[in-house]
Amino acid sequence: MNQLTNKTCVACRVGAPLATEDEINDFMQQLPNWSIVDENDVKRLKRVFAFNNFVDAVAFTQKIAVLAEDENHHPSILTEWGKVTVCWWTHKINGLHVNDFIMAAKTDQL
Amino acid sequence: MNQLTNKTCVACRVGAPLATEDEINDFMQQLPNWSIVDENDVKRLKRVFAFNNFVDAVAFTQKIAVLAEDENHHPSILTEWGKVTVCWWTHKINGLHVNDFIMAAKTDQL
Repeated sequence: MNQLTNKTCVACRVGAPLATEDEINDFMQQLPNWSIVDENDVKRLKRVFAFNNFVDAVAFTQKIAVLAEDENHHPSILTEWGKVTVCWWTHKINGLHVNDFIMAAKTDQL
Repeated sequence: MNQLTNKTCVACRVGAPLATEDEINDFMQQLPNWSIVDENDVKRLKRVFAFNNFVDAVAFTQKIAVLAEDENHHPSILTEWGKVTVCWWTHKINGLHVNDFIMAAKTDQL
């Protein structure tokens, strides 16, 4: 298996290829807590993380932000009391790039 | 006019009164950049703040979090590259309490 957490994001441009069905099937085995959702006709990788309060949720948001800046790939992060909902997708190609699966795996490691 | 930014949140309990129509009309004059949206049958105060990058958006999220902890009233904050969407409402009464208008006004001050 192609270990996602050992990879780093590649520079992504408009016209870069979407992840293939085979890649998605392979990667999702490594991301059992993530689901693929369709919002506004764009597929995204989504996971909800639970916390005991607001402060811990915000601290996790902050950690994701550092990871995002490191890899220069940015998610949406919904921070609420007791939970953080993270979505990864690639704006430039309006869908899922290999980078998104890498970032989801790295989010799990935080 | 009842200056929102001079107020502090009162402790809120299940059964506390929703903001009245007169209060809402009064408060919304002080919150020209906020709109009242209905999500899942719950009215919320919503505003989108624009930024030039992800780091500034996250820094603003962090500031809101400090304010929220200070007042012990917590919003949802959607952090994305270049923007932060804030929603204030009161879970305990499934709608808008005076506290929410106070917090919106204080968010504008950040």
